[in-house]
Amino acid sequence: MNFNEILYGVAYYDEYMPYDRIETDFKMIRDAGMNVIRIAESTWSTWEPKEGVFDFTHLHRMLDCAAKYELKVIVGTPTYAIPSWLAKKYPDILAVTHNGKELYGHRQNMDITNPDYLHHAQIIIEKLMEQVKDYDCVIGFQLDNETKPYDTCSKYAQAKFVEYLKNEFPDIDEFNREFGLDYWSNRVDDWDAFPDIRGTINMSLDAEYKKFQRKLVTDFFAWQADIVKKYKRDDQFITHNFDFEWHDYSYGMQPEVNQYEAAKCMDIAGCDIYHPSQSSLSGREITACGNIARGIKGDNYLVLETEAAGNHPWLPYPGQLRLQAISHIANGACMVEYWHWHSIHNAIESYWKGVLSHDLRPNRLYKECSVIGNELKKYGHRLVNLKKTNKFAIIADNSSLTGLNEFKLNNESDSNYNTVFRWLCDALYLMNIEYDVIPADPALFASYENILVPALYSATDDVLNALNEFVANGGNMVVTFKSAFSDEHLKIRHDVQPYIINKALGIQYDEFTLPDNVTVSCGGKSSKARDWMEMVDCTTATPVAMYEHKHWGVHAAITENSYGKGRAMYLATLFGEDTLIEALKLFFGEQKNEFDASYPVVIKRGTNMQGEKIIYLLNYSDDEQTVTCHADGLKKLCDDSTVSAGDCIALAPWDFSILYAD
Amino acid sequence: MNFNEILYGVAYYDEYMPYDRIETDFKMIRDAGMNVIRIAESTWSTWEPKEGVFDFTHLHRMLDCAAKYELKVIVGTPTYAIPSWLAKKYPDILAVTHNGKELYGHRQNMDITNPDYLHHAQIIIEKLMEQVKDYDCVIGFQLDNETKPYDTCSKYAQAKFVEYLKNEFPDIDEFNREFGLDYWSNRVDDWDAFPDIRGTINMSLDAEYKKFQRKLVTDFFAWQADIVKKYKRDDQFITHNFDFEWHDYSYGMQPEVNQYEAAKCMDIAGCDIYHPSQSSLSGREITACGNIARGIKGDNYLVLETEAAGNHPWLPYPGQLRLQAISHIANGACMVEYWHWHSIHNAIESYWKGVLSHDLRPNRLYKECSVIGNELKKYGHRLVNLKKTNKFAIIADNSSLTGLNEFKLNNESDSNYNTVFRWLCDALYLMNIEYDVIPADPALFASYENILVPALYSATDDVLNALNEFVANGGNMVVTFKSAFSDEHLKIRHDVQPYIINKALGIQYDEFTLPDNVTVSCGGKSSKARDWMEMVDCTTATPVAMYEHKHWGVHAAITENSYGKGRAMYLATLFGEDTLIEALKLFFGEQKNEFDASYPVVIKRGTNMQGEKIIYLLNYSDDEQTVTCHADGLKKLCDDSTVSAGDCIALAPWDFSILYAD
Amino acid sequence: MNFNEILYGVAYYDEYMPYDRIETDFKMIRDAGMNVIRIAESTWSTWEPKEGVFDFTHLHRMLDCAAKYELKVIVGTPTYAIPSWLAKKYPDILAVTHNGKELYGHRQNMDITNPDYLHHAQIIIEKLMEQVKDYDCVIGFQLDNETKPYDTCSKYAQAKFVEYLKNEFPDIDEFNREFGLDYWSNRVDDWDAFPDIRGTINMSLDAEYKKFQRKLVTDFFAWQADIVKKYKRDDQFITHNFDFEWHDYSYGMQPEVNQYEAAKCMDIAGCDIYHPSQSSLSGREITACGNIARGIKGDNYLVLETEAAGNHPWLPYPGQLRLQAISHIANGACMVEYWHWHSIHNAIESYWKGVLSHDLRPNRLYKECSVIGNELKKYGHRLVNLKKTNKFAIIADNSSLTGLNEFKLNNESDSNYNTVFRWLCDALYLMNIEYDVIPADPALFASYENILVPALYSATDDVLNALNEFVANGGNMVVTFKSAFSDEHLKIRHDVQPYIINKALGIQYDEFTLPDNVTVSCGGKSSKARDWMEMVDCTTATPVAMYEHKHWGVHAAITENSYGKGRAMYLATLFGEDTLIEALKLFFGEQKNEFDASYPVVIKRGTNMQGEKIIYLLNYSDDEQTVTCHADGLKKLCDDSTVSAGDCIALAPWDFSILYAD
Repeated sequence: MNFNEILYGVAYYDEYMPYDRIETDFKMIRDAGMNVIRIAESTWSTWEPKEGVFDFTHLHRMLDCAAKYELKVIVGTPTYAIPSWLAKKYPDILAVTHNGKELYGHRQNMDITNPDYLHHAQIIIEKLMEQVKDYDCVIGFQLDNETKPYDTCSKYAQAKFVEYLKNEFPDIDEFNREFGLDYWSNRVDDWDAFPDIRGTINMSLDAEYKKFQRKLVTDFFAWQADIVKKYKRDDQFITHNFDFEWHDYSYGMQPEVNQYEAAKCMDIAGCDIYHPSQSSLSGREITACGNIARGIKGDNYLVLETEAAGNHPWLPYPGQLRLQAISHIANGACMVEYWHWHSIHNAIESYWKGVLSHDLRPNRLYKECSVIGNELKKYGHRLVNLKKTNKFAIIADNSSLTGLNEFKLNNESDSNYNTVFRWLCDALYLMNIEYDVIPADPALFASYENILVPALYSATDDVLNALNEFVANGGNMVVTFKSAFSDEHLKIRHDVQPYIINKALGIQYDEFTLPDNVTVSCGGKSSKARDWMEMVDCTTATPVAMYEHKHWGVHAAITENSYGKGRAMYLATLFGEDTLIEALKLFFGEQKNEFDASYPVVIKRGTNMQGEKIIYLLNYSDDEQTVTCHADGLKKLCDDSTVSAGDCIALAPWDFSILYAD
Repeated sequence: MNFNEILYGVAYYDEYMPYDRIETDFKMIRDAGMNVIRIAESTWSTWEPKEGVFDFTHLHRMLDCAAKYELKVIVGTPTYAIPSWLAKKYPDILAVTHNGKELYGHRQNMDITNPDYLHHAQIIIEKLMEQVKDYDCVIGFQLDNETKPYDTCSKYAQAKFVEYLKNEFPDIDEFNREFGLDYWSNRVDDWDAFPDIRGTINMSLDAEYKKFQRKLVTDFFAWQADIVKKYKRDDQFITHNFDFEWHDYSYGMQPEVNQYEAAKCMDIAGCDIYHPSQSSLSGREITACGNIARGIKGDNYLVLETEAAGNHPWLPYPGQLRLQAISHIANGACMVEYWHWHSIHNAIESYWKGVLSHDLRPNRLYKECSVIGNELKKYGHRLVNLKKTNKFAIIADNSSLTGLNEFKLNNESDSNYNTVFRWLCDALYLMNIEYDVIPADPALFASYENILVPALYSATDDVLNALNEFVANGGNMVVTFKSAFSDEHLKIRHDVQPYIINKALGIQYDEFTLPDNVTVSCGGKSSKARDWMEMVDCTTATPVAMYEHKHWGVHAAITENSYGKGRAMYLATLFGEDTLIEALKLFFGEQKNEFDASYPVVIKRGTNMQGEKIIYLLNYSDDEQTVTCHADGLKKLCDDSTVSAGDCIALAPWDFSILYAD
Repeated sequence: MNFNEILYGVAYYDEYMPYDRIETDFKMIRDAGMNVIRIAESTWSTWEPKEGVFDFTHLHRMLDCAAKYELKVIVGTPTYAIPSWLAKKYPDILAVTHNGKELYGHRQNMDITNPDYLHHAQIIIEKLMEQVKDYDCVIGFQLDNETKPYDTCSKYAQAKFVEYLKNEFPDIDEFNREFGLDYWSNRVDDWDAFPDIRGTINMSLDAEYKKFQRKLVTDFFAWQADIVKKYKRDDQFITHNFDFEWHDYSYGMQPEVNQYEAAKCMDIAGCDIYHPSQSSLSGREITACGNIARGIKGDNYLVLETEAAGNHPWLPYPGQLRLQAISHIANGACMVEYWHWHSIHNAIESYWKGVLSHDLRPNRLYKECSVIGNELKKYGHRLVNLKKTNKFAIIADNSSLTGLNEFKLNNESDSNYNTVFRWLCDALYLMNIEYDVIPADPALFASYENILVPALYSATDDVLNALNEFVANGGNMVVTFKSAFSDEHLKIRHDVQPYIINKALGIQYDEFTLPDNVTVSCGGKSSKARDWMEMVDCTTATPVAMYEHKHWGVHAAITENSYGKGRAMYLATLFGEDTLIEALKLFFGEQKNEFDASYPVVIKRGTNMQGEKIIYLLNYSDDEQTVTCHADGLKKLCDDSTVSAGDCIALAPWDFSILYAD
């Protein structure tokens, strides 16, 4: 879906304010050039302080004042944090997880399959929708927030899981066979004797439960969307604030939600992206997570939350907030919204700082937001709904992610699926190659020239055959170690590895180990192999790099193969970023751009609704960077000045330049 | 209260002895020059092996034999470890904590609000008091031992907490507002729906429960004291063995007890101090923890436990035991008692070694104790009841300590409130400045010329206004980062920081972050900032040091301000001890002493009951130290020899010299 | 017991196979020169999928096919992993441990004292025995697998424990005295009030419960053996797969089983040995754990499981598998069996790789196994039942192991009893001295010339007197720190340390600490003392090394004493392997061998059933090694060529040579 302008704003909670200052705040928000707020998603106990007693005072204050200051509003359903009276009345609502019974207090600790929870959640959603549906300023709804299954292992969830398995496996013998339950006497020959899933040591079963938990989230969204749709206007959208695997910041694919499935009931994908700052600001997360978000529905997306200051180490250097905002937009976001407007005065997120500090006075960050807001007022309509046509795609696959959690690469290391995923993402990013993130869906493969496949551990025959076909038809494919190893239930294939795609790759292996003092070299760069290595032999492939090691040196670390009209590279181990970039350059060729610019200058581009080509030059460094233009016909968006071949563009530290061509 | 002699002795447990040797032991104790033992506080199950069956055989043996060998006795009530029959009969007595239900075995794991526990505790205390009250040798009573709330979260404790809150907040809306319970839907609009406190994510509420738990301890002491007072003679005192935050040794302020409140029912404060030894013996803990103890009742104190050998790494070098004993006394202790006489032959503290090793024979440590004991016999009456009149005070505040536990400075670091408290304590100690430790009580401020304020995170308006007034009236104040940030319920102030005291300090800030490669320099010393930094701007203050950093260099790390008749320094980050000492020298001026001695020679002083000024020179090093005297009129206590200006005093490794002047 | 040939084979699980390939597999096994498989021990739920429903299809397939391919079979009772229906019907069967209640899924998590478990275990064992008893190919039975008490703390187990204590201590006062229960009010004066053992802080009591848990295992084996004996033929043996303390691989003495007691109902000891590989392959575990196994019944043993590839880092270099197999045999094993034949396709051990990889095709490892198998076919009958007569013994003692777990050497370190045990084992191994591992049984001492005593923390007077007597009679004894410190209930001795054996050692001490920058030197080697040091004074002994330290240098680190006709060395601290070897050389003299070979060339020897002396030269390195023979009359087993004094034998990397003399 498309917007008329970039949405730029903040999450706002009148109910958290230490005193009445809504007029002051909304005026400040508007004056900063912001045009949107998100409200209401966290505070069910404010809207319903006692069972059946509703108080929407703060809600109406916010909506009325937003209307007055011409701010658009996204309203969140408040179901991700339950009121104390609900927990007291129905103790079962608090989830039972692998870690035991949850206590009241935290958000996101309820059993989303509990009927009493769902009953009361429906009531509060409907009451809320009745209150807000007639406000013109309300442009859309956010279902819940950062929803997960919260590892529910309740009696309800486990009973549903047994039904789900029965449905998938009408023959219980087939179930035992596919999951290998003879192992360690784990057979289930009577569905009624199905044991508590929390004790299982069968990774296939554990992974299936995780898949089932993801389905619970999909079902939960569909159920909420149906309620909201009963009330919402046609011009109002439904979205959700998806989040990512968290490594003290947004890192990679979300393990607990199948976002592709979950978003089917929504109009546009939303997400939150938090990332390191100061000298660690690199733009990697804005790109990698933003690309996941853009892939959820294959369209533009909303950044419903990102940091103003956020956590202690993230206080931005001067200029960084502005670079971050424009980077989101350059990546295809139609909205940049800070969590949150003001810093909170009590409880667990008191130090997750907003635009305003606790003193609630205009400050350095507010001033930088005002610069951004007023720039966006000027040319935001030419940046919004930026469309990209990428030739590169990286596959992100929930089942394989789970697979690598069930069977870790290296118990001494934190490396997981997202490590491998980000290894490929970041290499392309540093090479200034834009890419889409897609599910392992054969229907999508033909849209791309180049597909990168990180650790596709769990895959059906169909997907693997489609990858062979993609290459045969002329595609370029890069596949990493640990791909094609198991089927969709993590049952390991009992045939030549990598299963099926060994044809396109022209390789095979039957041994692997942890690298111990093994080096991989390519294009003049060398680095240590780490966390996993496969003893690859070439059948039709050519080795690009052999392992450097007395005994394992007979095997290949990197291979390249021609297959049909296409080519395929295999990366049999994890190694340094620099060496990977050399291997990818070798395989894909140098990717030239019209500025010969290389990281820390990042180039992003797309086409706007007016048909203009937009080019962003982003300086991700603390030093001034100068790039030379090698093309004609470009103009600077800020002043319409012409940039011709041979012209130099200077980029101040953490600054950017936007160019366009008709 | 005052004593006639230094109390020097051991904790003694006849009931732990592997065979009958009480005569041997008490004769050895007396021969070593010791004059006191502590007994009875740990062994309820010995005194009452079955419910209602009492056996005080060991007690009378110890009291009779103490009388024979002229040893004084302190009797402890045995309530901190319960008998097995009591736990079996009333399973509820074992505490429910944040970590779940306690099991029987450990000491200090009962619910001190449990009525059955209190009922049976009263019986054993009364039975014990009846047995001992008529012994002349019994000079005092210790209530319980190292008492804490043991994190009780029982139904009794939680019900009392709700009553406590109701009492503090008759208006439940005001309660929700002050604690910010709208956040994440945590409102409580019905006291009957108050959730299990253990789940809360509201730091204000969690901190309030910790404050309430401290009150439970105060109430528990008052209740025990009332029982003991029914029996004790007027010449017998009541004390308690308070302990300190434990970092593998006694470190700083005790988080779980408000010792100032708790000691109100007592006659004299007691404590245990354990500390590193061998090459790590520095005297820091003897001073810092001793000063806390002296501050509890603003008077001398008893060291009811300290190490003879203690834990594995603490086996003292020759001379260290003697230096330690005299250091306690130099700091104002009237008693030095080892825990314990003999090393125990079974159970968890078998390797917490006493004066005697497990072989129970006279050994190196016993011989060193004998030297000490016989020296104290000679001149202990001139060292006891040493009174100090310090110009410096450091504030120690339970609520702020809790505040910094609720909101850590840096999640990657162990630094907490006591880190900051000890940072200031140790700097003064190394500068040979003696200081008092006081609560944040405005009534006490006027007694001092200099007040140091570590991380006073939680403070009322009254306290902050009093600090401004202290400076305005001519006081010198040093305040660190994280002060004045929140009110007494950890609600963060919504005004300029540091709240209220920004006037005296002449500064303000609204940003903070974790220092990353930031340096602070002062007086020729440089060190890295760590764990926390505030972006301070001077209003009326002068910067003493700016941060050394490309972007943050516009802000001050150390400032100094004149306000009224006084001056105030602000330390906006945590940095190296050497640099801190330079900053404090700059602010307070060099603190000269009559020996120009500096650490590792430590100087302590006071006035005895005879009106003599006593000066201790303590050599905290493995090397001989020589100091030159710059004053006349001093004499050595050991031999009454005169020390005149220009004389040199040589201090052997780990040795000391005591001087006096009439 | 003796065998006709080396048993060489694999564990085989037809029930785990992804498709029917038993003929292929068994033919491959036979073709590799293998002659034995182990089956059936893991899959109760396959044999009894529902209560009372039995299905032995896979069992008969394996037995029939084994007969066809002339493979011998060891059948395991399947009781160490229970079926889901059993856990569902009797929830009590899942153990309650110190960590709480077990969940269904894992093996080895049942309460082996639960009557319902035992009832159903007996049924399945009897049903299985009925099926297999008439097969000629079945040569023996394995009881359960890697059996442990699984830390059962059930009501059944705890009630038995109280009975056990009552029986040991008819006088409850004596019980309280011996265990020191007065400490911290832990007295039990009424057996009915005996508290949950899981909470105890009394190490004597905790250790006694661990000893009792070991007795539960002994009783469990005796009970299973009685059932099996009702069915088995006289020519069939009973064994068990014992395992070792696990440090990511087999490390040392098993803490949870008294293997000497447990094996009394068995005909031959079996074990599994897993160890590091690649550049970390040293043969240390094959020797240390193999020697423990050989000591269990003082006879040859079966290696029922060892790694083909095993865990990720263990993929063997070329040649290593063959070196490992022959090393087990050189150490006295009559069987080498891989766990397992094929790599498993589902569940927790999918990556514990077998001989075949998941693709089930002949691979590098299979080929190396075939080399070994066919060599053993040729000369295995001359290697089997190898008898050793060692002059050195090392004591291994369960109670002392428990003692050092209850009272750690150093809380900052992982060093435990097995660290000290292996310190001595590995020094002898590196010195090319073969040794037996024996329990602390005085009846065995006279068989040896040299006894090494690692940390014999817990010992009766009888054992200590016997050690004195051993030395007095001419034996050489090496004793480490922490020996003789406590009695059999961990009650610390209240007399001179080391208790009783101070006579033979000629030393005493009453102080100990953690070494901090203390060095020990001997024979030109120096190393830091670590984890523990005792302040030893010589009475009649001579110091071999004093501590190098300013204060502790007055005490000895290593001493030597003459006592009666023998000599005794004391090691008062833990230090470097090189320095230890020098001290042992000094004490025992250089141990010459006929090749002057030293590690990495390992020499092992023994006498076969034909009376031939067999000598193994094993090259544990990645480089070729050459050794010169200094004896005449040797021949190479592979080709009967003569090796004479002066001849050189070249050993390729990871290769070996077997020599013999009539």
